[in-house]
Amino acid sequence: MESINTIVGYNNLVIYQNDDWFKFSLESVLLPSFVVINKNMDKILDLCSGNAPIPILLSTKTKKKIIGVEIQKDLCDLANKSIKANHLENQIEIINEDLNNLFNLYESDCFDIITCNPPYFKNIEDSKKNEDIHKIIARHEVKTNIEQIIKLSKKLLKNGGKLYLVHRTDRFFEITNLLMDNNLMPKRIRLIYPKEGEESNLFMIEATKNGSYGLKFESPLYVHNNDGSYKDEIKRIFKMEWWLWN
Amino acid sequence: MESINTIVGYNNLVIYQNDDWFKFSLESVLLPSFVVINKNMDKILDLCSGNAPIPILLSTKTKKKIIGVEIQKDLCDLANKSIKANHLENQIEIINEDLNNLFNLYESDCFDIITCNPPYFKNIEDSKKNEDIHKIIARHEVKTNIEQIIKLSKKLLKNGGKLYLVHRTDRFFEITNLLMDNNLMPKRIRLIYPKEGEESNLFMIEATKNGSYGLKFESPLYVHNNDGSYKDEIKRIFKMEWWLWN
Repeated sequence: MESINTIVGYNNLVIYQNDDWFKFSLESVLLPSFVVINKNMDKILDLCSGNAPIPILLSTKTKKKIIGVEIQKDLCDLANKSIKANHLENQIEIINEDLNNLFNLYESDCFDIITCNPPYFKNIEDSKKNEDIHKIIARHEVKTNIEQIIKLSKKLLKNGGKLYLVHRTDRFFEITNLLMDNNLMPKRIRLIYPKEGEESNLFMIEATKNGSYGLKFESPLYVHNNDGSYKDEIKRIFKMEWWLWN
Repeated sequence: MESINTIVGYNNLVIYQNDDWFKFSLESVLLPSFVVINKNMDKILDLCSGNAPIPILLSTKTKKKIIGVEIQKDLCDLANKSIKANHLENQIEIINEDLNNLFNLYESDCFDIITCNPPYFKNIEDSKKNEDIHKIIARHEVKTNIEQIIKLSKKLLKNGGKLYLVHRTDRFFEITNLLMDNNLMPKRIRLIYPKEGEESNLFMIEATKNGSYGLKFESPLYVHNNDGSYKDEIKRIFKMEWWLWN
């Protein structure tokens, strides 16, 4: 039985998702806003792609090739449905593969940019163990974990290549330590806050392979106004009108 | 010849400084606002005290003993002038000493809190080499450096004791790596931004001796409005009315 797919539209793009399995998160929309793609960058890889919101939204910033890797076949099928609907078949390729096999699939030092919105949680609480398997794999470190993602990125990125991650702020130093232990030097960080006056719950980070010390904490990104509505900057991100403000 | 001293007032406190030698910085006013002093905390140490703005302002948060250490005799004299003017002789003691000697002066594990607004700059640019020696010592790592301050804090803090630092954001990971290498685990961070929309230039950090992973990035602290005036939160910090908002 086929589940019902819903469509989310951003500017003139559509993204299919399946409300029963997995709805892609706000962070998958925010991370593309943080990625900087220079003219001399050729190959882009997105890990833990899910239904591929990051590759699809990145296509508004570049015409270069983007490869997405996703372990779940169902989500790859959804991704390909969106890619076709957006006429992006020539730019985006989705690979249905376990990250463990990527070490063999690609040569070292071959990507300019790697993006990833990884599973956030180390352990599965008992209360969540009966959840849909798609959700469990997307949210919990069962099929991969942040250390594997960082080690894989270290191998696959070119010298000077950039890894972009979004993750939970309570794991900040665990992640930045892993990055630096793997010669991926944090260069830009943007903290995400649910509202003004609250603590940060998420952060986006850009790390450069074999980069030097030196860091910018950019202006904080607030998601909601006090009345629960989206902040104007978030609304601008939804419109993907980068040329107006980036 | 005695230089002319100026007086800066915060709430009902006065702080003497000398405009020729050294004017204490905004950060010395902000750091006390970030310090949390629990009832069971007994001994507080401030390193690189200068004319002692941090001990004097911390006296609005606690009645416990505060020791300030400053290598420059002139600045110790200024500090003592302010301490006397504020009738804080029984609470604050200023020690004119090189940090190198503190390893011998105090036993290990004897302080609950250490605060420090250290010299920020590694090297002295040629253009600054003719500056007043007071300014050079306060701003540049000539008499001490961040590694020494962190190693000393590791020794002097009790298990679970807290180190509070303010420093430049471009040295963020150098400092947090030094902290973690010395078992001082970052627990709270507040980024300081000159204005909304700009990058952070300074940060305040609380690190716990032998603490575990887990971190809060608190709401960002903006210093100025776009018209150059101080933000309301900064004005509230100047008033030191902690009981109203802390």
